[in-house]
Amino acid sequence: MVPSSQGPHVNTVDVLLGDRSYPIEITSDAADRFAETIIDQLGDLSHVLLIADESVDQAWGRPLAEKLAESATDRPIRVSATTVASGEPSKSVAEFERLLAWVLSEGGDRRSVIVAVGGGVIGDLAGFVAASFARGVRFVQIPTTLLAMVDSSVGGKTGINLPAAKNMVGAFWQPSLVLIDTAVLATLDDRSYLSGLAEVIKYGVIDDAEFFGYLESHAGDLVARDPESLRHAIGKSCQSKANVVGDDERETSGRRAILNYGHTFAHAIESTAGYGTFLHGEAVAIGMQMAARMAIDTGMCDRALWERQTRLIQACGLPTTWADAQPDAMLPVMMRDKKVAHGKLRFILPTRIGSVEMVGDVDESAVRDAIVKLKK
Amino acid sequence: MVPSSQGPHVNTVDVLLGDRSYPIEITSDAADRFAETIIDQLGDLSHVLLIADESVDQAWGRPLAEKLAESATDRPIRVSATTVASGEPSKSVAEFERLLAWVLSEGGDRRSVIVAVGGGVIGDLAGFVAASFARGVRFVQIPTTLLAMVDSSVGGKTGINLPAAKNMVGAFWQPSLVLIDTAVLATLDDRSYLSGLAEVIKYGVIDDAEFFGYLESHAGDLVARDPESLRHAIGKSCQSKANVVGDDERETSGRRAILNYGHTFAHAIESTAGYGTFLHGEAVAIGMQMAARMAIDTGMCDRALWERQTRLIQACGLPTTWADAQPDAMLPVMMRDKKVAHGKLRFILPTRIGSVEMVGDVDESAVRDAIVKLKK
Ligand SMILES: NC(=O)c1ccc[n+]([C@@H]2O[C@H](COP(=O)([O-])OP(=O)(O)OC[C@H]3O[C@@H](n4cnc5c(N)ncnc54)[C@H](O)[C@@H]3O)[C@@H](O)[C@H]2O)c1
Ligand SMILES: NC(=O)c1ccc[n+]([C@@H]2O[C@H](COP(=O)([O-])OP(=O)(O)OC[C@H]3O[C@@H](n4cnc5c(N)ncnc54)[C@H](O)[C@@H]3O)[C@@H](O)[C@H]2O)c1
Ligand SMILES: [Zn+2]
Ligand SMILES: [Zn+2]
Repeated sequence: MVPSSQGPHVNTVDVLLGDRSYPIEITSDAADRFAETIIDQLGDLSHVLLIADESVDQAWGRPLAEKLAESATDRPIRVSATTVASGEPSKSVAEFERLLAWVLSEGGDRRSVIVAVGGGVIGDLAGFVAASFARGVRFVQIPTTLLAMVDSSVGGKTGINLPAAKNMVGAFWQPSLVLIDTAVLATLDDRSYLSGLAEVIKYGVIDDAEFFGYLESHAGDLVARDPESLRHAIGKSCQSKANVVGDDERETSGRRAILNYGHTFAHAIESTAGYGTFLHGEAVAIGMQMAARMAIDTGMCDRALWERQTRLIQACGLPTTWADAQPDAMLPVMMRDKKVAHGKLRFILPTRIGSVEMVGDVDESAVRDAIVKLKK
Repeated sequence: MVPSSQGPHVNTVDVLLGDRSYPIEITSDAADRFAETIIDQLGDLSHVLLIADESVDQAWGRPLAEKLAESATDRPIRVSATTVASGEPSKSVAEFERLLAWVLSEGGDRRSVIVAVGGGVIGDLAGFVAASFARGVRFVQIPTTLLAMVDSSVGGKTGINLPAAKNMVGAFWQPSLVLIDTAVLATLDDRSYLSGLAEVIKYGVIDDAEFFGYLESHAGDLVARDPESLRHAIGKSCQSKANVVGDDERETSGRRAILNYGHTFAHAIESTAGYGTFLHGEAVAIGMQMAARMAIDTGMCDRALWERQTRLIQACGLPTTWADAQPDAMLPVMMRDKKVAHGKLRFILPTRIGSVEMVGDVDESAVRDAIVKLKK
């Protein structure tokens, strides 16, 4: 991550995936340069289709669309723009179809570029549109939530939901460029912002002990949204995810599973608490606690990890326990989870800060114990 | 293409695409062995989802489903089966969504295998479902029209239509296996069958002079659906397409464009005649004549090619002229075609039997002349 010699600080993470490699550029207060960067980085740019979450369109979508239309040097860039309603229900087949018809009606072709401006919902949806229109057009991600910056915009997973199951339909489709500006987060409410920090902590535990240390000493700065600490934390998180994804782009080797640390529990927490009770990151925080608890109880790691993780999660204003947890309700959900192979539960458990292992064949009673111990 | 030492004749074409390579097996009267072949070729087969065109379900879909359920050796294979209404309207977002929900409700997961039994409509639709469910599951093609056998089932293009444009949405998704049995064609009406021969002739002109010679000497056998000639012609056609696709899997290098020989004209013929007037192959036959005509008039090839192509198309019972052709109606359609770059028409034109070139910057008047000359 090298700050450029002049102009604003730019932390760059290169996602290395052969001919699908792309850079993630992380800045603060420099979003007015996004149009330039897009034009610089993508050759043959004649038509941009901007798809923005309605809640960030005025602040970030429209200004970018205008800049893109103005910035053109030799040949003008045609810019089309539309918005999508905020929230998970937009990740539907109906919205997918509407956007495809819109791209076509705007004269989109194989050389068009789709730009997504929003959180994970918009990135996943617009990404699947980009993957599918004309069997694939280029795609730029401009994530506007912390979760999207450190997680959903990296790794190439795109997709939509079916009424009966989340993220069940989609494609692996890598962006050509990801542009992150921390100033975009200013309008994000505290709870959503802190929720994104849970995924940041996750990278420290699963992949990077030094980064975990950084988070311990900068938790206060991060909670206060200090731009420099944020750029560093986002960059390290993207780097960790990029490393894992580089080893297992299409989720075939199993390596990518480590990103699910805390998530088997989290999905069961979200689902049994009723969707909406917890934000995803809050459930992940509690889920990581349950996983760490299991690791201690089975002797896989020592108590120090547990204590450091608990303190860091608390310092980031996130929950570490769940008084209402119901193991009898959670277990069946976990059994239906994708990480169950042949009826046996599998978990990503920590061995020390910076390292996790996939543990198959886990006893139901160990899972139950961990849930119960986290009730207070 | 090596007949197996015992049992039925099996011509095999290997489509070489690195870790996405797969075999095409071509037999006659051996479809009752398809279940075995699928089980042999695909490891880890626990759940098969069979999607069949309703018109071939009773004869080929259901018997295969039953065999699959019976053939299991150690662990039983769970078999789910559904049908799709015959015809192009099934290649819709609505049908895509219905099938995805069906796969989910049948308990489909990442290890499930989708098997498509039908013509190009079913292959394209079921292939896009396979590409998208859980971001991609394995896929077996059992093409039941000649066009699907020699064209749509090879090459990995899958997709659906938007109301305003055909094949506008989809994915490149290679099958794991393609199983062809010529006996399946017995129920196909003559016009549809002969229409498929146009694409067969196309491979001779664009890629394989020896094969063109074979077609000249076996046109009668092919029209009579002689199994041995058919297996040979299907195998050679698949081999030609596989070679081109191997050089340009995702249609980026331009090499794949040679498959469009005759097609820029054909699309304009189909569209201005009103969809349904010509079958696709009939329009391709006339389109190849128009393209050959242009090649002669611009001095790119000699008259002998024209005469041989005309005779072969006629011998296959396909049209070589179109009395009602309207250049004023056809040209605007061709200008909208994907093969127009920066407002200039581009064509695939033959230089000799077995070889074509992409010619850009073509004069409208040359196109017009070729259309007019083919009016009688
Ligand atoms: N593709 C992946 O690898 C991946 C990984 C994790 C999660 N996801 C997906 O991401 C989605 C969740 O992402 P999310 O948390 O960003 O949700 P989101 O996109 O719904 O955004 C959360 C809320 O914040 C609003 N918002 C966005 N940016 C804002 C800003 N700058 N200021 C104020 N409000 C803003 C949105 O309108 C929305 O209401 C889920 O659908 C999940 O499945 C995908
Ligand atoms: N993916 C590709 O590379 C590619 C290439 C060329 C064409 N296509 C697509 O393929 C489609 C056309 O394929 P098609 O011509 O096979 O059309 P199709 O699938 O509609 O089949 C034509 C008709 O024949 C019927 N039929 C199928 N098998 C039969 C059998 N054995 N006996 C009797 N009737 C049978 C069908 O019900 C249908 O009515 C188009 O949608 C086209 O876009 C795709
Ligand atoms: Zn998560
Ligand atoms: Zn064709």
